[in-house]
Amino acid sequence: MAQNPTRRAALTDAAIDVLAREGARGLTFRAVDVQAGVPAGTASNYFANRDDLLHQTARHIHHRLTPDPTVLTELLRAPRDRALVTALMHDLMRRIADDRAGYLAMLELRLEATRRPELRAELTGTIRDELEANIAYHLGEGFPGDRRTVVLLYLAMTGLIVEHLTLPEVLGSDGPAALIDSLVERLLPDPAV
Amino acid sequence: MAQNPTRRAALTDAAIDVLAREGARGLTFRAVDVQAGVPAGTASNYFANRDDLLHQTARHIHHRLTPDPTVLTELLRAPRDRALVTALMHDLMRRIADDRAGYLAMLELRLEATRRPELRAELTGTIRDELEANIAYHLGEGFPGDRRTVVLLYLAMTGLIVEHLTLPEVLGSDGPAALIDSLVERLLPDPAV
Repeated sequence: MAQNPTRRAALTDAAIDVLAREGARGLTFRAVDVQAGVPAGTASNYFANRDDLLHQTARHIHHRLTPDPTVLTELLRAPRDRALVTALMHDLMRRIADDRAGYLAMLELRLEATRRPELRAELTGTIRDELEANIAYHLGEGFPGDRRTVVLLYLAMTGLIVEHLTLPEVLGSDGPAALIDSLVERLLPDPAV
Repeated sequence: MAQNPTRRAALTDAAIDVLAREGARGLTFRAVDVQAGVPAGTASNYFANRDDLLHQTARHIHHRLTPDPTVLTELLRAPRDRALVTALMHDLMRRIADDRAGYLAMLELRLEATRRPELRAELTGTIRDELEANIAYHLGEGFPGDRRTVVLLYLAMTGLIVEHLTLPEVLGSDGPAALIDSLVERLLPDPAV
C-alpha cells in the first residue's frame, strides 16, 4: 500500500465528498480518484478494497469532527455547570454545520452499515468508544447529571443534527440554537435542587 | 397513469424495500419492477418520473408508520399523564422496529432530499405537518409540558431511532425501552410541581 499521508488524507476527504453527494452506492475507487483529481488507479494503491476505504473514511470523519483543542481549552476555563454544557453543545453544532459533508457522509455510512456487518462492527466500536469517553469525561469533571443524562443529551443532539442537516425548515421558528438551550436546561438537573 | 390501487401500493412497498436495501441511488423503475415481481415497464405506468416515485414512496412510508387506530384508542383510555406519553413513545418504537425498512427508507429519502430541492420541499411539508399536529394534539389533550417539550421529545426519539436502527450495539446495556422511560420522565415536567 502507498503511504504518502497527505495524499491518503486527500483521498479520504474526497471519499467524504463522494459519499455526501452520491450516497454510499456511488463510492467507488474511480469516483474517489476523480473527486481528488488524481490519476486513475491512485485510490487502489491506498486502500486494500472497498471495505478498507469505508473504514478509513469513517475514521477520517471522526477525526475531522473532533473539537479544536484551542477552542476547547478556552471553553473549559469556565465552571462545570449547565452554561458550560450548553456552550459545548453549541460548539458541537457549529463544527457539524461547518462540515456538513462530514456528518452527511457518516449518515450514509450508518445506512451502509445496515448492509455490511464488518462496517457495522467498525462504526459501533468508534461511536461507542466516543460515547463512553464523553460519559467518563462528563462524570469525571463533575458536570451536572448522571450517565443517563449524557446518553439522552447525545440522542437528542443526534436527532437535532439529522433534522437540521437534512430538512432544516421542519423546525421552523424553533431554531437549533434555542432548542439546544432548552434541551440542556431541561435534561440537566437544576443545580439549585 | 395506471390506477389499480392495490398494484400501486405493491409498487411503493417494493420501492421501500429497494431504498432500504440499495440506497436512494439504487431506486430505479427497473429495480421496483423486479422487487415487486411485475413485468418490466409496470412502474413507469404508475409514476410520471423518478421524482414522482420518490414523492409517492415518501407518502406511503408515512402511511405505513401511522399508529394502528385500535391500539391508539385502547391506549387513550388512560389519563393524560407522563405514563401515557411513555406508552405512546413505546408504541412508536414498536411500530418502527416492526417496519425497519420503512424507517430506513425514510432516512435514505432524507439524504436524497439534500440533493433534490423538490423532494426536500415535499418531505419538509409532510414531516412539519405531522410535528405540528403532534404539538396541537399534546397541548389540546392537556398532556404535561409545552410546545418545546414536544419538539425536544420528537428530536430525542429521532436520535434514538436512528441509533437503534443503524448501530444498535452502541447503546449497549442502555436499551431503548429504559431510555424512553428516562427521556419522558426527565423531559416532561413533574406533575407534582
